[in-house]
Amino acid sequence: MGADAGPKIVVDGAEITRVRCPDVRYLMYGDRALVEPLLAAYPDLQAITEVRHTDKFITMEDKPAQAIRKGRDTSMWHAISAVQQGEADVVVSAGNTGALMAMAKIQLRTMRGVDRPAIAALWPTERGESVVLDVGANVDCDERQLVTFAIMGEAFARAVFGLQRPLVGVLNIGTEEVKGNEAVKAAAQILQDADLPIKFYGFVEGDDIGAGTVDVVVTDGFTGNVALKTAEGTARLISHYLSTAIRRSLFARIGYLLASGAFNVLRTKMDPRSVNGGVFLGLNGLVVKSHGGTDEMGMASAVELAHNMISHDLVEKIEQDVQHIYGTEDAEVPELRPANKEVSA
Amino acid sequence: MGADAGPKIVVDGAEITRVRCPDVRYLMYGDRALVEPLLAAYPDLQAITEVRHTDKFITMEDKPAQAIRKGRDTSMWHAISAVQQGEADVVVSAGNTGALMAMAKIQLRTMRGVDRPAIAALWPTERGESVVLDVGANVDCDERQLVTFAIMGEAFARAVFGLQRPLVGVLNIGTEEVKGNEAVKAAAQILQDADLPIKFYGFVEGDDIGAGTVDVVVTDGFTGNVALKTAEGTARLISHYLSTAIRRSLFARIGYLLASGAFNVLRTKMDPRSVNGGVFLGLNGLVVKSHGGTDEMGMASAVELAHNMISHDLVEKIEQDVQHIYGTEDAEVPELRPANKEVSA
Repeated sequence: MGADAGPKIVVDGAEITRVRCPDVRYLMYGDRALVEPLLAAYPDLQAITEVRHTDKFITMEDKPAQAIRKGRDTSMWHAISAVQQGEADVVVSAGNTGALMAMAKIQLRTMRGVDRPAIAALWPTERGESVVLDVGANVDCDERQLVTFAIMGEAFARAVFGLQRPLVGVLNIGTEEVKGNEAVKAAAQILQDADLPIKFYGFVEGDDIGAGTVDVVVTDGFTGNVALKTAEGTARLISHYLSTAIRRSLFARIGYLLASGAFNVLRTKMDPRSVNGGVFLGLNGLVVKSHGGTDEMGMASAVELAHNMISHDLVEKIEQDVQHIYGTEDAEVPELRPANKEVSA
Repeated sequence: MGADAGPKIVVDGAEITRVRCPDVRYLMYGDRALVEPLLAAYPDLQAITEVRHTDKFITMEDKPAQAIRKGRDTSMWHAISAVQQGEADVVVSAGNTGALMAMAKIQLRTMRGVDRPAIAALWPTERGESVVLDVGANVDCDERQLVTFAIMGEAFARAVFGLQRPLVGVLNIGTEEVKGNEAVKAAAQILQDADLPIKFYGFVEGDDIGAGTVDVVVTDGFTGNVALKTAEGTARLISHYLSTAIRRSLFARIGYLLASGAFNVLRTKMDPRSVNGGVFLGLNGLVVKSHGGTDEMGMASAVELAHNMISHDLVEKIEQDVQHIYGTEDAEVPELRPANKEVSA
C-alpha cells in the first residue's frame, strides 16, 4: 500500500517477476478491495498469491515513532511479521523507509554481533555493479560499525554478484591535508590488520564508486545517502543537458532518431529502476525497500533482488561471517582494535 | 610548477585569459629556464608578465608539514607571499592542495571571525551554477563553522553570480528516521532563527545540488568532497555508457555524427574544465586551486574565476558579512545559539 503510485504497480511488478522467477510465491498485505480486482487481471499471479486484508496502512508522512504506535494492524507490520514467523522468506515494500526500518528492527531484531543494521544499495559501475552501504540508516558510525558494514557488504557481493573474493574499500577523501575522519581511519586499520577473511583494497574516493574500483564501498549513512542522491542528481542533470542539446537543431533530432538504439541502451543503463531496491542488512531476516516513487519495472527489480538474495542464503552467510569474526558472544572484541600501523591507500 | 602537465599549460592558460580579460597582469613564480621559453611564444603575454625565479617547488607528494619545512624558497610560498604583500590580488595554483592551504593559512591568516577556511567549488546545475562548500578543507565541522560557510558562500554567490539574494541550503539526508547529524541540525536552526541577512531555504539533499534548488550548498568538507567526486564519477560513467552504446551500430554512429553539434554542447556542459577551480574562502586574501590534472582551458577558467572574484571585491564582502554577524570581536557569539524551534525543510 506504500508506493506513491498505489498497489497497482506492486501487482504489475509481481506479475513481471512471476514470469522471470517461476518459483516465487506471494503474500500480499493490504486493502483486499483494492488488491483483488488488480490481481484478477493476472490469473497465473492470482494462483500463487494469497491476499491478507488489513485496514491500516503506514503513510509516507508517518514518523517512525507514530508508525510504531499505529503498529500492529498495518499491512507493513504484518508483512514483516510473516518473515519473522517463517511464513515468508523476504519482505519487499515501497513504503516509508523510516517506519519500515523501525518495525523491522522490532520484529526481526538486529543480528547477533551487529550493532545497527545498514541499508545497502546497488550501484551501476563501468565494470558492472557494486554495493554501497550504509546509504541512510545510520548518521554517525564508529569503526566497529563500519567494519561490520564491510563484512555484510562482502557477504552480499558474494551472494548477489556471485563473486568469490569481492574487493572491499572504505570511502574517504583524498586531499593531502586531512585524510578522513577518525572512524574511517580506524576502520581501515582494522580491515588492514585484523585477521579478517576480507580482500581489503584500502581507501576509495567518490569517483571510484562509478568506476567500479571495488565491489563493496563502505561508508556511514550520511555520506552514503548524500553520495547516492548526488549521483542521481548528476544523472538527471546530464539527461537534461542531452535533451536540451538535441532539441536545438533538426540535424540533432534526426541524429537522435538514428542513434535511438544507442540511447535506449543508455537509458536502460541509467534507469534508476534497474537498480531499485535498498536492502536492509544486519537483521534476522531480509527486507528490501523499493523506491516509493517507482513503477512496476522498478518493483519487479526489487522483487527479483529479494529472490536472488534468498536463493543465495544471504542471511546465513552474513550470520556466519559476523560470528566467525566477532565470536558467538556479544562481548567486546579486543582483537579488532586497530594496531599501530600505517594504512596503505 | 605544480600542474601535472607542467608549466606549459599555465602559460597557455594565462594567454587565453589575457585575451578574455584585458586588464589582467601576471607574476609567475617558478623555474625561469622553463617558463621564459614558453612565454616567448606569446609576446603580448610576455609584456604583461613578470617571471620571478625560484629553485624549489612543492610536489604533489609533499605532505603539508614537509611543504612548510621546504617552505620559504618555493614558488608556491612566494606566489602566496605576493598576495600577502599586496603585490598580487589573487594567487592561482594547480599544485598540491594540502600544501597550498597550509601555506595560505600561515601567510594570509584566517579572517577574523572565521574558525577555519573552506574550499568552495562551482557546480553546474539545471538552472546554471551553484557554489558548494566545504569540499575538502575540514573533515569535521561544528554548527558555527557551517554557518560561517553559509555566510562566505552567500557572499561568493552575490559577487560571482551577480545575485542580489542567493538562496542558501544545508546539505542533509532525507530518510525519515534520522534527519541529519547534530551539527547540520544546529546550523539549520541558527540560519533559520538568527537575525542573519541570509535567504535560507532549509535542508537540501544530494540530488538538489544538480537540480540547482539553491545557489549555495553548505556542507562539511568530508561530505562535500565525496559528493563532488561522486558527481565526477557519475558523469564519467555516463560518458562511458554513451560511447559504448554509440559504437554498437552503424546507425548509431551516423546518428552521432548528425547530432554532433548537440554532443558538443553536452560535452562543453559536462566539461570539468569549465568549472575548474576550488576557491579558498575565509582567508585575508584569495587563493584559487586549479585541478592538478587540468589543461590550458581549465587553467584559463581558474584564472578567469580569480579575476571575477577580484573584480567583485569578494574578500571585502565576506569580511563585512562575517563582521556584521559575529561582531568585530572574536568572542563567543551567544546570539547564534539555536533556539528551540522546528526547522522547516
